Amino acid sequence: MTSKKIVIKFGGSVLYKENMTLNVELINNIINVINSLHEEGHKIAIVVGGGKLARVIIQASDVLGHVTTFKDILAVESTRIHALLVIASLKDKAYLLVPRSFEEVGKALSTDKIVVTGGLQPGQSTSAVSALLAEYWGADFLLNLTNVDKVYNKDPHKFPDAKPIDNMTSEELLEIILKQEEEPGKYDLFDTVGCEIIKRSNIKLIFINGSNPENINKVVKGEQVGTIVNG
Amino acid sequence: MTSKKIVIKFGGSVLYKENMTLNVELINNIINVINSLHEEGHKIAIVVGGGKLARVIIQASDVLGHVTTFKDILAVESTRIHALLVIASLKDKAYLLVPRSFEEVGKALSTDKIVVTGGLQPGQSTSAVSALLAEYWGADFLLNLTNVDKVYNKDPHKFPDAKPIDNMTSEELLEIILKQEEEPGKYDLFDTVGCEIIKRSNIKLIFINGSNPENINKVVKGEQVGTIVNG
Amino acid sequence: MTSKKIVIKFGGSVLYKENMTLNVELINNIINVINSLHEEGHKIAIVVGGGKLARVIIQASDVLGHVTTFKDILAVESTRIHALLVIASLKDKAYLLVPRSFEEVGKALSTDKIVVTGGLQPGQSTSAVSALLAEYWGADFLLNLTNVDKVYNKDPHKFPDAKPIDNMTSEELLEIILKQEEEPGKYDLFDTVGCEIIKRSNIKLIFINGSNPENINKVVKGEQVGTIVNG
Amino acid sequence: MTSKKIVIKFGGSVLYKENMTLNVELINNIINVINSLHEEGHKIAIVVGGGKLARVIIQASDVLGHVTTFKDILAVESTRIHALLVIASLKDKAYLLVPRSFEEVGKALSTDKIVVTGGLQPGQSTSAVSALLAEYWGADFLLNLTNVDKVYNKDPHKFPDAKPIDNMTSEELLEIILKQEEEPGKYDLFDTVGCEIIKRSNIKLIFINGSNPENINKVVKGEQVGTIVNG
Amino acid sequence: MTSKKIVIKFGGSVLYKENMTLNVELINNIINVINSLHEEGHKIAIVVGGGKLARVIIQASDVLGHVTTFKDILAVESTRIHALLVIASLKDKAYLLVPRSFEEVGKALSTDKIVVTGGLQPGQSTSAVSALLAEYWGADFLLNLTNVDKVYNKDPHKFPDAKPIDNMTSEELLEIILKQEEEPGKYDLFDTVGCEIIKRSNIKLIFINGSNPENINKVVKGEQVGTIVNG
Amino acid sequence: MTSKKIVIKFGGSVLYKENMTLNVELINNIINVINSLHEEGHKIAIVVGGGKLARVIIQASDVLGHVTTFKDILAVESTRIHALLVIASLKDKAYLLVPRSFEEVGKALSTDKIVVTGGLQPGQSTSAVSALLAEYWGADFLLNLTNVDKVYNKDPHKFPDAKPIDNMTSEELLEIILKQEEEPGKYDLFDTVGCEIIKRSNIKLIFINGSNPENINKVVKGEQVGTIVNG
Repeated sequence: MTSKKIVIKFGGSVLYKENMTLNVELINNIINVINSLHEEGHKIAIVVGGGKLARVIIQASDVLGHVTTFKDILAVESTRIHALLVIASLKDKAYLLVPRSFEEVGKALSTDKIVVTGGLQPGQSTSAVSALLAEYWGADFLLNLTNVDKVYNKDPHKFPDAKPIDNMTSEELLEIILKQEEEPGKYDLFDTVGCEIIKRSNIKLIFINGSNPENINKVVKGEQVGTIVNG
Repeated sequence: MTSKKIVIKFGGSVLYKENMTLNVELINNIINVINSLHEEGHKIAIVVGGGKLARVIIQASDVLGHVTTFKDILAVESTRIHALLVIASLKDKAYLLVPRSFEEVGKALSTDKIVVTGGLQPGQSTSAVSALLAEYWGADFLLNLTNVDKVYNKDPHKFPDAKPIDNMTSEELLEIILKQEEEPGKYDLFDTVGCEIIKRSNIKLIFINGSNPENINKVVKGEQVGTIVNG
Repeated sequence: MTSKKIVIKFGGSVLYKENMTLNVELINNIINVINSLHEEGHKIAIVVGGGKLARVIIQASDVLGHVTTFKDILAVESTRIHALLVIASLKDKAYLLVPRSFEEVGKALSTDKIVVTGGLQPGQSTSAVSALLAEYWGADFLLNLTNVDKVYNKDPHKFPDAKPIDNMTSEELLEIILKQEEEPGKYDLFDTVGCEIIKRSNIKLIFINGSNPENINKVVKGEQVGTIVNG
Repeated sequence: MTSKKIVIKFGGSVLYKENMTLNVELINNIINVINSLHEEGHKIAIVVGGGKLARVIIQASDVLGHVTTFKDILAVESTRIHALLVIASLKDKAYLLVPRSFEEVGKALSTDKIVVTGGLQPGQSTSAVSALLAEYWGADFLLNLTNVDKVYNKDPHKFPDAKPIDNMTSEELLEIILKQEEEPGKYDLFDTVGCEIIKRSNIKLIFINGSNPENINKVVKGEQVGTIVNG
Repeated sequence: MTSKKIVIKFGGSVLYKENMTLNVELINNIINVINSLHEEGHKIAIVVGGGKLARVIIQASDVLGHVTTFKDILAVESTRIHALLVIASLKDKAYLLVPRSFEEVGKALSTDKIVVTGGLQPGQSTSAVSALLAEYWGADFLLNLTNVDKVYNKDPHKFPDAKPIDNMTSEELLEIILKQEEEPGKYDLFDTVGCEIIKRSNIKLIFINGSNPENINKVVKGEQVGTIVNG
Repeated sequence: MTSKKIVIKFGGSVLYKENMTLNVELINNIINVINSLHEEGHKIAIVVGGGKLARVIIQASDVLGHVTTFKDILAVESTRIHALLVIASLKDKAYLLVPRSFEEVGKALSTDKIVVTGGLQPGQSTSAVSALLAEYWGADFLLNLTNVDKVYNKDPHKFPDAKPIDNMTSEELLEIILKQEEEPGKYDLFDTVGCEIIKRSNIKLIFINGSNPENINKVVKGEQVGTIVNG
């Protein structure tokens, strides 16, 4: 098995149980898998999303009447707290700071440590950050941990006839995302900016169920798991 | 006339004549108008785009086989050179550095000087930056200087039946932009990310012809010039 | 009334209601008072503490087996999220970033905006930060908002014979703090490092009940409210 | 011998001879030992203190009537000059800059070079910095170079019946430190903040006489030298 | 009297008495004059040089066998300690940090505070920094405080026939400087890089005796004092 | 062949063909040689100069009436765009950012990646930067790529009797440079500040024709190519 460059992205659906309780067992299991991959010689970068913490803070910001940019900034800071939790678990293997701009991502990557970042700036999702990071760093693939086994052609919670997809193009992913955004209770997969980057540089994006971290190893070994976006 | 907070955005179509020759007379005229507005008590922030310099550099980057993120970064650096030219003309009135991240924009705004920024990071246009800046700072409006008098419902260079628009909603602007992107020789107005920000915070966006900088004064005085995007 | 330089510190007991719910009404009222004082010409700097958010994150960090420094860093990041909420409410009156080091505090103060900071580094409380800031900036007094009307000679929740104090010396405050630290369910007033700074530079420290923000105005007008530590 | 992570702290008593003359022979010898340890595979971080330079500057600051925070900042800058001298001797083995905040310590550690730091901010001693660094980095022990062979239960210069100690707990060290601070001509060992960190994370702290750098090697080999604070 | 923009430069000959003793009375007097000028509406920036502190440290660096760049860096850090002493005296009137790069000078100037800088980087004198700052900021003149009343055509300590000069061109200054550099015990006036900047932008440079700070006021009032380099 | 530390400097004469067209084939060839040297274990740092891009921008700045410092800053930014092109080609082998100050050069070198820098600040050429970098880093030699095979005792384009030089001292180089500066159409070799650094630290400086990148390999192998400045 040759050494791979892997960007792993996970957010709220993996980080939290109910009610602001962090899912520490799952976080720990994911970190163990990452530790092992790192010891096997793979290069890893991690993007961590927001989840419930971001929602609690944004809600307060909303009541306080803040401008939307500040809500975005508060959401970004929330993702950085999650990123710090991951760094504290990886210790010496990780770049010890959470990058606060794209330039700091470059500085961090230059140390050859595991870079763990949250969001980077307002008006931009962590999906977009993960796609940019994969493109910039020349990753072999971008692994998106979610709470479902595969991507569906529609929201499986709302449409009983939704079908799971094994392989799709970035163009097809973009269509599903654009369709979602027209609907109120949106099924949050990836965002359009991230999808455009995946598309422009033909980045391999794989969605897997993060509640079973063993899936990460399967993907690295080349097994077909989850949904592969390619081409 | 009460003091207004104005974000002014201009790029290649205003900055350059033919073949890498900067349009210094026009740049100078625009700066004179900005200087006057500043002396009248208006607060101003400026976003400067790329233009031909960016294209020359990106072309070389393309031949050298670089990853797209680097092309974006090179384009951002090109916009910063233009921003520096504007700062050097405004001297003490301006924040003397070009911010290199959204956080630096916040630091710059905190000095109450005229902040002049270019792009901020890869994967993001200066249109998006200008919209974010207008939202963050609470601008009264965002003024986009182009090389046409008004926005048209289609590309006026290609469609003889294209019609100029005086007033439109952000939703209508988004539709025109999305239609453009499907076409090869695209008519470059504003981008979808910027448009989403305009929409989510109901920012007043005004497109005017920058080749006549007097138009800026007209807009500040409340005259109907160019195309107003509102609501 | 002459213009005063005031450092205001508040933390968890003011920020939160029950269960991770931010006390947005109270935060809003405090900000309104600060806004008014600022408009009257007073100069203000604010230090915001951690509270329940810090506790939730530290608890997860603890289960994940992290080194204590990281728990401190996570606590510091939590205070910065609260500081950002205050900045977003103060808008243009505030320095728009939360300083991340003592040097950044100096840069922020140099803009003459309202500086809002959280903690600065591991191994140091926000009480110590507020005392240092008051000393560095030459504040007229340091105002500590708590959830009790006055400082008591012992923990009033545990000792029915605890007596409220109107005036005390920094030496007496230090004694109360040192006594607390020997007890398990400690009555969290201020810390020893902060108290040593108060003492070495003879800074006037006033504890008031933050649940009635009108108390801030009373202190500024020179009325006797809460507990004054002086000398 | 397995590779160890060692934080080495030394200050004025090691750096200076009489009258502002740096003890370059001793500094050189210490650096030679550190170079050898590094070549043997040990990981090293260094905290350098102030000494006479700090005193000369603080005295001038005092006459100029400066606020105490500035005296602290000037003392911190003095320690950084000493740290730079050490870096210039270690050359490529060292992180080439002196970190100016705790975050910069994290960035520096991420390069796996020998990090050499002075103080970090006002209101905090280099003892506290060394303890924090040892905790954050997960050091095997913290080595404090002084000018005496062992810690005494009282100041040996003042009390003829002072007894040297081989082993002690952090609690016992704290008691000695607190007793010192009540006395005018204080016997400067370590500070309370540093001691609290040693205690909370059970860090092994060893005091040795720095005038014989060979002692450093003995400690690394596990010999009993100086005073060991543990538990 | 109209408001002027003044860069004031002083170094070792003004800062120190004999043997590492700072000349605090003189420093204080200079700061009082600067405070008054600032209150009268003049804009001031200050460059502080090295002097004996730099020499003590460089000597140690030399014995330790360091590369010359590090000696330069140590000299720069020494100037920053002097700059901090000036900042601590000016308090709120000053930008509270010493800029560490030319870009930070730009950020500092953008706050409209009194910027106090030392050296900026190795391979460059504080004379060059002062000339660059005067050019960048558009200063009315650059005031260089020395320990002699006027510039002489040769070193007055060595040549009894040296003649004081009232007015000279930058070209003439350059010749004197180049002649000095050929001699061992050089008469340290200004450096060639600084002189080239004075020349290329026709900056008015005035040398006065700093031991009488009242000379600064005379220059501001337009009186002929010291030596004026112009044209 | 033992591992060497090499600073390579090249600028406009290598970067551009006619009329703002980057010489991408040559740039690519140079990068291929650098890649090979790096893979053979040599340590490399690169300084990239300005060329035609700088000239186009400075000309516009001149027409806009800017202060010379800003022209220098614009020239520095131009060199950084060229440095970025080199970084984008070297990818993971390079420190991913262009250092913006001498301190950032130190941070970059601490990662052991190939550091690629442009200019650092106004008033300083990239020749001076390359000499400082070679001195600071302890390079075995500084390789300057030009468009001529050797250094001549006079400008070969103007004087038919100009003679190529194989070996010279830094003192002799300085004389040639000083002579050039007196002439209008100057023959741009190296600058005086850079030359003084070469001289003070006895750095081996080699000028070779960059249009044949194979010359770089020859120099590394110890063959006599171009002009060697030594002693």
